[in-house]
Amino acid sequence: MTLELHHGGPGANSLKVLLTLAEKNIDYVDHRLNLVRFEQHEPEFVKINPRGQVPVLIHDGRIITESTVICEYLDAVFPAVPLRPRDEYWRAQMRIWTKFVDEYFCWCVSTLGWEAMGKRVVRDMPEAAFEAFVARVPLHEQKVKWRNARHGFDPALLAEERRKIRFSVEKLEADLTERKWLAGDEYSLADICTYPMASAVPRLMPEAMSEAAAPRAMAWLRAIGERSATRQVFAGAPRPTPLKAGN
Amino acid sequence: MTLELHHGGPGANSLKVLLTLAEKNIDYVDHRLNLVRFEQHEPEFVKINPRGQVPVLIHDGRIITESTVICEYLDAVFPAVPLRPRDEYWRAQMRIWTKFVDEYFCWCVSTLGWEAMGKRVVRDMPEAAFEAFVARVPLHEQKVKWRNARHGFDPALLAEERRKIRFSVEKLEADLTERKWLAGDEYSLADICTYPMASAVPRLMPEAMSEAAAPRAMAWLRAIGERSATRQVFAGAPRPTPLKAGN
Repeated sequence: MTLELHHGGPGANSLKVLLTLAEKNIDYVDHRLNLVRFEQHEPEFVKINPRGQVPVLIHDGRIITESTVICEYLDAVFPAVPLRPRDEYWRAQMRIWTKFVDEYFCWCVSTLGWEAMGKRVVRDMPEAAFEAFVARVPLHEQKVKWRNARHGFDPALLAEERRKIRFSVEKLEADLTERKWLAGDEYSLADICTYPMASAVPRLMPEAMSEAAAPRAMAWLRAIGERSATRQVFAGAPRPTPLKAGN
Repeated sequence: MTLELHHGGPGANSLKVLLTLAEKNIDYVDHRLNLVRFEQHEPEFVKINPRGQVPVLIHDGRIITESTVICEYLDAVFPAVPLRPRDEYWRAQMRIWTKFVDEYFCWCVSTLGWEAMGKRVVRDMPEAAFEAFVARVPLHEQKVKWRNARHGFDPALLAEERRKIRFSVEKLEADLTERKWLAGDEYSLADICTYPMASAVPRLMPEAMSEAAAPRAMAWLRAIGERSATRQVFAGAPRPTPLKAGN
């Protein structure tokens, strides 16, 4: 059996898969891309994932993309430490959370992250170098995002993204008022897949997520941060990346 | 065992669940809401789903929302006619498709559908009646969409949505060039969850999806339409709804 992970370090969507592998204590070949150097757009990586995005799992030669899908795959193939509720009702609630993160929460957090950090990375690039860089980004939507990161996002969009973050934190707080973890009594992929986005909010938007504004969500963040798997992931990866810092 | 489905008829997201139930030949109590009369925003329905959206499944008193999640739930709980690939690699490919539909394809198709049909439904409503109606819509994003449907969507947005539809159809055609169904050799939830959106495109945007432009996608649409489960779903439901007609 060979298992390889291409990832961008312990932040954003890569962090979901790193946490899943660590909780399950699975060995794998680690390929960390330097996202500051845009290694995810290098031709050799785009051959692996034509979308030019991390993380990517390669299991016995078969390529699997999309972080949430990778996490469910790992849980099915390596079931010894289960990270999905056994009860199908709670498993459905887990998927409603991961869907919400992928369709809504991750985008608004990501925009504030790009606004804060992306600009810093590409702001001072000479125009010709920037255009050459954007030409190599495979996804249309990502090209648009890099242009916005360079020139600054529309203030109306940023306000709308902040509204969405407030909505997301309220939802998190409401669910954590009813139960210990997002999909019931056990730690699951719902928590793992929400953590990378939620953990960025106290820094990006403290008025929405603080001890005063969202005490249960903050306690939940700490509980995840203190897990030995989480500590192991961050201990093994001291090198910061813009996505880690910004999102 | 009691199983109830609240749905809006054989179109859009409701159609995914109706097709899944029909393929599996599962009996259930049918609650069809009249979406033209906005029954999904009635207080008694919002008690069931605070988001005011169909479909909703109630299984032995437990409420499950989100059409894609409902389909996976049904396949897990009623496994006799499997609709998810057994091989976890292909199951991951199935989820990549359903994610793509939920995050991308359904939104661009839906905007053209709302532009075509939504306007017709709310265009002639007196202002006070329209505002009273919008006040009752639970989701902020849906309120915005109803306003756009009444006043017309921004042409730049419509052009962008058409670009996304072209991209989606090309992806569909590419995958169906490589294999018979979207997630391998067997009909699966990837096909079922893509069909409601894809089947609206030849009507909404024939230049993107026709025998000439996308022959394999068109043949795939016909193959799904000819399945006995699909015919049964449409035969049992002659009453059109705006979402069916528009999307």
